[in-house]
Amino acid sequence: MKLPKLAIQLPEWVAEYVDQSPKIFSGIEDRMDFVIELSRKNIEHQTGGPFGAAVFDANGCLVAPGINMVIPSNCSILHAEMVAIALAQKILGRFDISDGGKFDFDLFATTEPCAMCFGAIPWSGVSRLVCGARGEDARAIGFDEGPKLENWISALADRGLGVIRDVRREKAAAVLRDYMKTGGLIYNPGQKT
Amino acid sequence: MKLPKLAIQLPEWVAEYVDQSPKIFSGIEDRMDFVIELSRKNIEHQTGGPFGAAVFDANGCLVAPGINMVIPSNCSILHAEMVAIALAQKILGRFDISDGGKFDFDLFATTEPCAMCFGAIPWSGVSRLVCGARGEDARAIGFDEGPKLENWISALADRGLGVIRDVRREKAAAVLRDYMKTGGLIYNPGQKT
Repeated sequence: MKLPKLAIQLPEWVAEYVDQSPKIFSGIEDRMDFVIELSRKNIEHQTGGPFGAAVFDANGCLVAPGINMVIPSNCSILHAEMVAIALAQKILGRFDISDGGKFDFDLFATTEPCAMCFGAIPWSGVSRLVCGARGEDARAIGFDEGPKLENWISALADRGLGVIRDVRREKAAAVLRDYMKTGGLIYNPGQKT
Repeated sequence: MKLPKLAIQLPEWVAEYVDQSPKIFSGIEDRMDFVIELSRKNIEHQTGGPFGAAVFDANGCLVAPGINMVIPSNCSILHAEMVAIALAQKILGRFDISDGGKFDFDLFATTEPCAMCFGAIPWSGVSRLVCGARGEDARAIGFDEGPKLENWISALADRGLGVIRDVRREKAAAVLRDYMKTGGLIYNPGQKT
Protein backbone atom coordinates (compact mmCIF):
# COMPACT_ATOMS: atom_id res chain seq x y z
CA MET A 1 0.00 0.00 0.00
CA LYS A 2 1.40 3.33 -1.04
CA LEU A 3 0.49 5.77 1.71
CA PRO A 4 0.21 9.33 0.45
CA LYS A 5 1.92 12.23 2.12
CA LEU A 6 -0.32 14.89 3.62
CA ALA A 7 1.11 18.26 2.67
CA ILE A 8 -0.41 21.36 4.20
CA GLN A 9 0.71 24.54 2.53
CA LEU A 10 -0.96 27.89 3.05
CA PRO A 11 -1.79 29.71 -0.18
CA GLU A 12 0.67 32.32 -1.37
CA TRP A 13 -1.58 35.27 -0.53
CA VAL A 14 -1.24 34.50 3.20
CA ALA A 15 2.54 35.07 3.19
CA GLU A 16 2.04 38.25 1.14
CA TYR A 17 -0.57 39.54 3.58
CA VAL A 18 1.66 38.73 6.55
CA ASP A 19 4.53 40.59 4.89
CA GLN A 20 2.35 43.70 4.56
CA SER A 21 1.30 43.58 8.21
CA PRO A 22 3.02 45.11 11.25
CA LYS A 23 5.71 43.11 13.03
CA ILE A 24 4.04 43.78 16.38
CA PHE A 25 0.30 44.14 16.90
CA SER A 26 -0.06 46.33 19.95
CA GLY A 27 -3.61 45.63 21.11
CA ILE A 28 -5.90 42.63 21.06
CA GLU A 29 -8.27 44.45 18.70
CA ASP A 30 -5.42 44.88 16.19
CA ARG A 31 -4.63 41.19 16.43
CA MET A 32 -8.29 40.31 15.95
CA ASP A 33 -8.54 42.67 12.96
CA PHE A 34 -5.62 40.76 11.44
CA VAL A 35 -7.32 37.37 11.76
CA ILE A 36 -10.68 38.73 10.60
CA GLU A 37 -8.95 40.02 7.50
CA LEU A 38 -7.50 36.52 7.01
CA SER A 39 -11.03 35.09 7.11
CA ARG A 40 -12.30 37.70 4.64
CA LYS A 41 -9.42 37.16 2.24
CA ASN A 42 -9.97 33.41 2.47
CA ILE A 43 -13.44 33.92 1.04
CA GLU A 44 -12.29 36.36 -1.62
CA HIS A 45 -9.53 34.03 -2.79
CA GLN A 46 -11.88 31.03 -2.54
CA THR A 47 -9.25 29.12 -0.60
CA GLY A 48 -11.50 27.85 2.19
CA GLY A 49 -14.22 28.56 4.74
CA PRO A 50 -14.84 31.89 6.49
CA PHE A 51 -12.52 31.40 9.42
CA GLY A 52 -9.12 32.77 10.39
CA ALA A 53 -6.82 32.25 13.35
CA ALA A 54 -3.32 33.03 14.52
CA VAL A 55 -0.88 32.36 17.32
CA PHE A 56 0.72 35.49 18.81
CA ASP A 57 3.36 35.73 21.47
CA ALA A 58 2.78 37.76 24.63
CA ASN A 59 4.21 40.90 22.98
CA GLY A 60 1.80 40.75 20.05
CA CYS A 61 4.31 39.36 17.59
CA LEU A 62 2.74 37.00 15.06
CA VAL A 63 4.06 33.44 15.31
CA ALA A 64 1.80 31.72 12.80
CA PRO A 65 -1.38 32.49 10.86
CA GLY A 66 -4.08 29.94 10.06
CA ILE A 67 -7.00 29.79 7.68
CA ASN A 68 -9.72 27.23 7.15
CA MET A 69 -8.58 24.82 4.41
CA VAL A 70 -11.23 22.09 4.64
CA ILE A 71 -12.62 22.34 1.12
CA PRO A 72 -9.50 22.88 -1.02
CA SER A 73 -7.53 20.29 0.99
CA ASN A 74 -10.39 17.79 1.23
CA CYS A 75 -9.53 17.53 4.92
CA SER A 76 -12.07 18.07 7.68
CA ILE A 77 -9.47 18.61 10.40
CA LEU A 78 -7.95 21.71 8.76
CA HIS A 79 -9.89 24.35 10.63
CA ALA A 80 -8.14 27.69 10.99
CA GLU A 81 -7.23 27.10 14.63
CA MET A 82 -5.74 23.68 13.86
CA VAL A 83 -3.65 25.10 11.04
CA ALA A 84 -2.38 27.96 13.21
CA ILE A 85 -1.52 25.60 16.07
CA ALA A 86 0.27 23.09 13.82
CA LEU A 87 2.17 25.82 12.00
CA ALA A 88 3.20 27.56 15.23
CA GLN A 89 4.51 24.24 16.56
CA LYS A 90 6.41 23.65 13.35
CA ILE A 91 7.95 27.14 13.47
CA LEU A 92 8.80 26.89 17.19
CA GLY A 93 10.04 23.31 16.83
CA ARG A 94 8.03 21.88 19.70
CA PHE A 95 4.64 20.25 20.25
CA ASP A 96 4.10 22.25 23.43
CA ILE A 97 3.92 25.89 22.40
CA SER A 98 4.50 26.98 26.01
CA ASP A 99 7.74 24.94 26.22
CA GLY A 100 6.91 23.42 29.56
CA GLY A 101 5.01 26.45 30.80
CA LYS A 102 7.90 28.87 30.26
CA PHE A 103 6.18 31.09 27.66
CA ASP A 104 2.70 32.50 27.13
CA PHE A 105 1.13 32.49 23.70
CA ASP A 106 -2.39 33.44 22.59
CA LEU A 107 -4.56 31.75 20.03
CA PHE A 108 -6.81 34.22 18.22
CA ALA A 109 -9.82 32.87 16.33
CA THR A 110 -12.43 34.74 14.34
CA THR A 111 -15.13 32.47 15.77
CA GLU A 112 -15.40 30.55 19.03
CA PRO A 113 -13.98 27.05 18.59
CA CYS A 114 -16.02 24.10 17.40
CA ALA A 115 -15.90 20.93 19.48
CA MET A 116 -12.72 19.71 17.73
CA CYS A 117 -10.74 22.93 18.02
CA PHE A 118 -11.91 23.33 21.60
CA GLY A 119 -10.45 19.92 22.39
CA ALA A 120 -7.24 20.71 20.53
CA ILE A 121 -6.48 23.85 22.54
CA PRO A 122 -5.44 22.22 25.84
CA TRP A 123 -3.03 19.92 23.98
CA SER A 124 -1.38 22.82 22.15
CA GLY A 125 0.27 24.70 24.98
CA VAL A 126 -1.29 28.09 24.29
CA SER A 127 -2.20 30.07 27.41
CA ARG A 128 -5.15 32.08 26.21
CA LEU A 129 -7.88 32.00 23.59
CA VAL A 130 -9.27 35.23 22.14
CA CYS A 131 -12.46 34.93 20.07
CA GLY A 132 -14.39 37.22 17.73
CA ALA A 133 -17.79 35.86 16.68
CA ARG A 134 -19.70 33.46 18.89
CA GLY A 135 -20.45 29.84 18.11
CA GLU A 136 -24.08 30.83 17.57
CA ASP A 137 -22.98 33.18 14.77
CA ALA A 138 -21.47 30.17 12.95
CA ARG A 139 -24.55 28.07 13.65
CA ALA A 140 -26.72 30.91 12.30
CA ILE A 141 -25.25 30.35 8.83
CA GLY A 142 -25.61 26.58 9.09
CA PHE A 143 -22.38 25.18 10.51
CA ASP A 144 -22.78 22.37 13.03
CA GLU A 145 -20.21 23.34 15.63
CA GLY A 146 -20.44 19.93 17.24
CA PRO A 147 -21.07 18.58 20.71
CA LYS A 148 -19.17 20.92 23.02
CA LEU A 149 -19.36 21.33 26.78
CA GLU A 150 -21.82 24.03 27.79
CA ASN A 151 -19.31 25.27 30.35
CA TRP A 152 -16.40 25.15 27.90
CA ILE A 153 -14.91 28.41 29.14
CA SER A 154 -14.67 27.22 32.72
CA ALA A 155 -13.35 23.85 31.50
CA LEU A 156 -10.46 25.73 29.86
CA ALA A 157 -10.03 27.87 32.98
CA ASP A 158 -9.67 24.64 35.01
CA ARG A 159 -6.59 23.92 32.86
CA GLY A 160 -5.18 27.41 33.34
CA LEU A 161 -6.38 28.69 29.98
CA GLY A 162 -8.01 32.11 29.80
CA VAL A 163 -10.72 33.03 27.28
CA ILE A 164 -11.64 36.48 25.99
CA ARG A 165 -14.83 36.62 23.92
CA ASP A 166 -16.61 39.08 21.66
CA VAL A 167 -13.55 40.96 20.45
CA ARG A 168 -14.80 42.63 17.24
CA ARG A 169 -17.67 40.15 17.29
CA GLU A 170 -19.84 42.07 14.81
CA LYS A 171 -17.04 42.49 12.32
CA ALA A 172 -16.14 38.79 12.54
CA ALA A 173 -19.78 37.69 12.25
CA ALA A 174 -20.23 39.90 9.18
CA VAL A 175 -17.66 37.75 7.35
CA LEU A 176 -19.66 34.64 8.20
CA ARG A 177 -22.84 36.21 6.82
CA ASP A 178 -21.04 37.33 3.68
CA TYR A 179 -19.83 33.78 3.13
CA MET A 180 -23.40 32.52 3.26
CA LYS A 181 -24.71 35.30 1.02
CA THR A 182 -22.13 34.51 -1.65
CA GLY A 183 -23.12 30.83 -1.63
CA GLY A 184 -20.16 29.48 0.34
CA LEU A 185 -20.34 25.75 1.01
CA ILE A 186 -21.42 24.71 4.50
CA TYR A 187 -19.36 21.56 4.79
CA ASN A 188 -21.13 19.59 7.50
CA PRO A 189 -20.71 15.91 6.62
CA GLY A 190 -23.52 13.63 5.57
CA GLN A 191 -25.30 16.38 3.69
CA LYS A 192 -26.71 15.54 0.33
CA THR A 193 -25.26 17.99 -2.16
CA MET B 1 7.47 35.70 6.09
CA LYS B 2 8.34 32.29 4.76
CA LEU B 3 5.59 29.95 5.88
CA PRO B 4 6.76 26.37 6.19
CA LYS B 5 4.91 23.46 4.65
CA LEU B 6 3.49 20.91 7.04
CA ALA B 7 4.28 17.49 5.66
CA ILE B 8 2.76 14.49 7.36
CA GLN B 9 4.25 11.22 6.25
CA LEU B 10 3.71 7.94 8.02
CA PRO B 11 6.94 6.04 8.73
CA GLU B 12 7.91 3.32 6.28
CA TRP B 13 7.12 0.46 8.66
CA VAL B 14 3.41 1.32 8.50
CA ALA B 15 3.20 0.66 4.75
CA GLU B 16 5.18 -2.56 5.23
CA TYR B 17 2.85 -3.71 8.00
CA VAL B 18 -0.22 -2.90 5.91
CA ASP B 19 1.22 -4.87 3.00
CA GLN B 20 1.61 -7.94 5.25
CA SER B 21 -1.98 -7.66 6.50
CA PRO B 22 -5.16 -9.15 4.98
CA LYS B 23 -7.01 -7.17 2.35
CA ILE B 24 -10.29 -7.70 4.20
CA PHE B 25 -10.62 -7.95 7.97
CA SER B 26 -13.70 -10.05 8.57
CA GLY B 27 -14.65 -9.21 12.16
CA ILE B 28 -14.38 -6.15 14.35
CA GLU B 29 -11.96 -7.97 16.65
CA ASP B 30 -9.62 -8.55 13.68
CA ARG B 31 -9.78 -4.87 12.79
CA MET B 32 -9.09 -3.91 16.39
CA ASP B 33 -6.16 -6.34 16.55
CA PHE B 34 -4.75 -4.56 13.50
CA VAL B 35 -4.88 -1.12 15.12
CA ILE B 36 -3.59 -2.42 18.45
CA GLU B 37 -0.62 -3.84 16.58
CA LEU B 38 -0.11 -0.39 15.01
CA SER B 39 0.02 1.14 18.49
CA ARG B 40 2.49 -1.50 19.70
CA LYS B 41 4.73 -1.12 16.69
CA ASN B 42 4.62 2.65 17.14
CA ILE B 43 6.24 2.20 20.54
CA GLU B 44 8.77 -0.36 19.30
CA HIS B 45 9.83 1.86 16.41
CA GLN B 46 9.81 4.94 18.69
CA THR B 47 7.78 6.83 16.13
CA GLY B 48 5.14 8.23 18.48
CA GLY B 49 2.74 7.67 21.34
CA PRO B 50 0.94 4.41 22.17
CA PHE B 51 -2.11 4.93 20.00
CA GLY B 52 -3.30 3.50 16.70
CA ALA B 53 -6.37 4.02 14.55
CA ALA B 54 -7.74 3.19 11.14
CA VAL B 55 -10.66 3.86 8.84
CA PHE B 56 -12.31 0.74 7.41
CA ASP B 57 -15.11 0.51 4.92
CA ALA B 58 -18.31 -1.41 5.72
CA ASN B 59 -16.82 -4.63 4.31
CA GLY B 60 -13.75 -4.50 6.54
CA CYS B 61 -11.40 -3.26 3.87
CA LEU B 62 -8.72 -0.94 5.24
CA VAL B 63 -8.95 2.60 3.82
CA ALA B 64 -6.27 4.32 5.90
CA PRO B 65 -4.19 3.57 8.99
CA GLY B 66 -3.19 6.17 11.57
CA ILE B 67 -0.64 6.33 14.34
CA ASN B 68 0.12 8.93 16.95
CA MET B 69 2.85 11.23 15.61
CA VAL B 70 2.84 14.05 18.18
CA ILE B 71 6.42 13.73 19.38
CA PRO B 72 8.37 13.05 16.16
CA SER B 73 6.33 15.63 14.23
CA ASN B 74 6.30 18.22 17.03
CA CYS B 75 2.59 18.57 16.36
CA SER B 76 -0.05 18.17 19.06
CA ILE B 77 -2.92 17.63 16.63
CA LEU B 78 -1.44 14.45 15.12
CA HIS B 79 -3.27 11.92 17.23
CA ALA B 80 -3.81 8.55 15.59
CA GLU B 81 -7.49 9.22 14.87
CA MET B 82 -6.71 12.58 13.23
CA VAL B 83 -4.03 11.02 11.05
CA ALA B 84 -6.36 8.17 9.98
CA ILE B 85 -9.20 10.61 9.20
CA ALA B 86 -6.98 12.99 7.23
CA LEU B 87 -5.33 10.15 5.31
CA ALA B 88 -8.67 8.49 4.49
CA GLN B 89 -9.97 11.80 3.17
CA LYS B 90 -6.85 12.25 1.08
CA ILE B 91 -7.16 8.72 -0.34
CA LEU B 92 -10.91 9.07 -1.01
CA GLY B 93 -10.52 12.59 -2.36
CA ARG B 94 -13.25 14.16 -0.24
CA PHE B 95 -13.56 15.90 3.13
CA ASP B 96 -16.78 14.01 3.90
CA ILE B 97 -15.83 10.35 4.13
CA SER B 98 -19.51 9.35 3.78
CA ASP B 99 -19.82 11.29 0.51
CA GLY B 100 -23.08 12.95 1.46
CA GLY B 101 -24.28 10.01 3.53
CA LYS B 102 -23.96 7.50 0.68
CA PHE B 103 -21.35 5.24 2.33
CA ASP B 104 -20.66 3.91 5.81
CA PHE B 105 -17.13 3.87 7.18
CA ASP B 106 -15.87 2.98 10.65
CA LEU B 107 -13.14 4.66 12.64
CA PHE B 108 -11.28 2.20 14.86
CA ALA B 109 -9.20 3.58 17.71
CA THR B 110 -7.11 1.73 20.26
CA THR B 111 -8.33 4.10 22.98
CA GLU B 112 -11.51 6.13 23.36
CA PRO B 113 -11.06 9.57 21.83
CA CYS B 114 -9.69 12.54 23.71
CA ALA B 115 -11.69 15.78 23.60
CA MET B 116 -10.09 16.84 20.30
CA CYS B 117 -10.56 13.58 18.43
CA PHE B 118 -14.09 13.31 19.81
CA GLY B 119 -14.87 16.71 18.30
CA ALA B 120 -13.20 15.76 15.01
CA ILE B 121 -15.34 12.66 14.46
CA PRO B 122 -18.65 14.37 13.54
CA TRP B 123 -16.85 16.56 10.97
CA SER B 124 -15.20 13.56 9.32
CA GLY B 125 -18.17 11.73 7.88
CA VAL B 126 -17.48 8.35 9.50
CA SER B 127 -20.61 6.50 10.63
CA ARG B 128 -19.29 4.54 13.57
CA LEU B 129 -16.52 4.60 16.14
CA VAL B 130 -15.07 1.38 17.55
CA CYS B 131 -12.83 1.71 20.61
CA GLY B 132 -10.46 -0.60 22.48
CA ALA B 133 -9.18 0.83 25.77
CA ARG B 134 -11.21 3.34 27.74
CA GLY B 135 -10.32 6.97 28.34
CA GLU B 136 -9.59 6.06 31.95
CA ASP B 137 -6.92 3.60 30.77
CA ALA B 138 -5.10 6.51 29.08
CA ARG B 139 -5.58 8.72 32.14
CA ALA B 140 -4.20 5.91 34.31
CA ILE B 141 -0.79 6.31 32.65
CA GLY B 142 -0.95 10.11 32.91
CA PHE B 143 -2.50 11.45 29.71
CA ASP B 144 -4.91 14.34 30.17
CA GLU B 145 -7.66 13.37 27.77
CA GLY B 146 -9.17 16.82 27.98
CA PRO B 147 -12.56 18.30 28.78
CA LYS B 148 -15.03 15.98 27.08
CA LEU B 149 -18.78 15.68 27.47
CA GLU B 150 -19.74 13.08 30.06
CA ASN B 151 -22.46 11.85 27.73
CA TRP B 152 -20.18 11.81 24.69
CA ILE B 153 -21.58 8.54 23.36
CA SER B 154 -25.15 9.85 23.29
CA ALA B 155 -23.90 13.14 21.80
CA LEU B 156 -22.47 11.13 18.88
CA ALA B 157 -25.68 9.07 18.68
CA ASP B 158 -27.62 12.34 18.34
CA ARG B 159 -25.63 12.90 15.14
CA GLY B 160 -26.28 9.41 13.85
CA LEU B 161 -22.90 8.06 14.91
CA GLY B 162 -22.70 4.69 16.64
CA VAL B 163 -20.07 3.76 19.22
CA ILE B 164 -18.83 0.30 20.16
CA ARG B 165 -16.59 0.18 23.22
CA ASP B 166 -14.31 -2.28 24.96
CA VAL B 167 -13.30 -4.28 21.89
CA ARG B 168 -10.08 -6.02 23.04
CA ARG B 169 -9.90 -3.46 25.83
CA GLU B 170 -7.37 -5.35 27.91
CA LYS B 171 -5.04 -5.93 24.98
CA ALA B 172 -5.22 -2.26 24.00
CA ALA B 173 -4.71 -1.07 27.58
CA ALA B 174 -1.67 -3.35 27.93
CA VAL B 175 0.07 -1.32 25.20
CA LEU B 176 -0.58 1.86 27.17
CA ARG B 177 0.92 0.33 30.30
CA ASP B 178 3.94 -0.93 28.37
CA TYR B 179 4.51 2.58 27.02
CA MET B 180 4.59 3.95 30.56
CA LYS B 181 6.82 1.14 31.81
CA THR B 182 9.37 1.77 29.08
CA GLY B 183 9.52 5.47 29.98
CA GLY B 184 7.43 6.80 27.09
CA LEU B 185 6.88 10.55 27.19
CA ILE B 186 3.47 11.73 28.42
CA TYR B 187 3.15 14.83 26.29
CA ASN B 188 0.60 16.92 28.14
CA PRO B 189 1.56 20.55 27.60
CA GLY B 190 2.83 22.88 30.25
CA GLN B 191 4.75 20.12 31.99
CA LYS B 192 8.20 20.91 33.17
CA THR B 193 10.53 18.33 31.64
